[in-house]
Amino acid sequence: MIFHDFIRDSEGWQTIRRDLVFDNPHLRVFDTETRTPSRPDGCHWLVAHRKAAAVVAPLTSDGKYLLVRQERVPIRAAIWEFPAGQIDENREHDERAIRETALRELREESGHELALDGELIPLGYFFPSCGFTDEHSYLFLARGVVPSASGDEQDENEAITECRAFSRDEFRSMIAHNEIRDANTLSAFARLCALELF
Amino acid sequence: MIFHDFIRDSEGWQTIRRDLVFDNPHLRVFDTETRTPSRPDGCHWLVAHRKAAAVVAPLTSDGKYLLVRQERVPIRAAIWEFPAGQIDENREHDERAIRETALRELREESGHELALDGELIPLGYFFPSCGFTDEHSYLFLARGVVPSASGDEQDENEAITECRAFSRDEFRSMIAHNEIRDANTLSAFARLCALELF
Repeated sequence: MIFHDFIRDSEGWQTIRRDLVFDNPHLRVFDTETRTPSRPDGCHWLVAHRKAAAVVAPLTSDGKYLLVRQERVPIRAAIWEFPAGQIDENREHDERAIRETALRELREESGHELALDGELIPLGYFFPSCGFTDEHSYLFLARGVVPSASGDEQDENEAITECRAFSRDEFRSMIAHNEIRDANTLSAFARLCALELF
Repeated sequence: MIFHDFIRDSEGWQTIRRDLVFDNPHLRVFDTETRTPSRPDGCHWLVAHRKAAAVVAPLTSDGKYLLVRQERVPIRAAIWEFPAGQIDENREHDERAIRETALRELREESGHELALDGELIPLGYFFPSCGFTDEHSYLFLARGVVPSASGDEQDENEAITECRAFSRDEFRSMIAHNEIRDANTLSAFARLCALELF
């Protein structure tokens, strides 16, 4: 996995023009003109830029998955999902910063941390909506988590109303029945299944 | 699955203010103030609005998954993914329109269609990035697909360079090794696994 220069021009890709058309601390939107391998004359595309994120699947030593219930304003609903959060933009080239973000979100959102013999296992990354945004999220399995001595330390802008441990079967059933419906948790589960870690 | 009034105020949620701050045929951005169950005084949030989409996992009668290789400008890469496309906004309340979109994208992007004894099986929906956008995508398994009589009919704005059938093991290995890395394909695979359809 390449953590450095994540999205850049290479092999047939060339940014011809990139005009900032919306600017906000949470979102920047660019009107772009880009040459691609199959469109050497360039194509016009709107690109939303967001910070990268880290997502962590916390597994307790007795084989349960921790999920947090979070109010999500854009969809006007509270849903069960894995802890996740954005990576400081200036540090995304640094693998340690990505791991620190995963562990910080684990602690802040679920009030848990890796046990002494716990492991943070990378599960690759994914693009939430690659037709419109460069946003990408790094996925991890935190195998062996325990309650943190300091408890949770929720970000004041977030609204996590609950954290609960679910058995493997409960977790899978929540995915099957559309109760789990965010790309972070679904993509982490997809990688766990494909890697035979679930 | 409720296809009607997908995202709306209910049970403790109330939109107080919703100002359009960016407007484009592909994306609208709103600056919002919303009461939530845990924040009855309201909270301030930026919400990106995008059309809903349909994603289809095409399975051939000999048990192979079809993937298309598509150039994705926001991430400056061509990646393997399941066919997908946006639903006409005025018709999203209509289950038939969602199914038609799935079958249209199957035909346009992969040049395949359901066989006479084929089935389009709903796998629920998901939110690609629910902290920032209301975008949601309906997932389907198209079990039993055959080459379409009319071939593919690619949208001129898209750049699909290839369509190929992969065995179950190849497909799973591509997910395990981060070759498949878009939320659409990963989320469809997650549901297939959870429903024991994979």
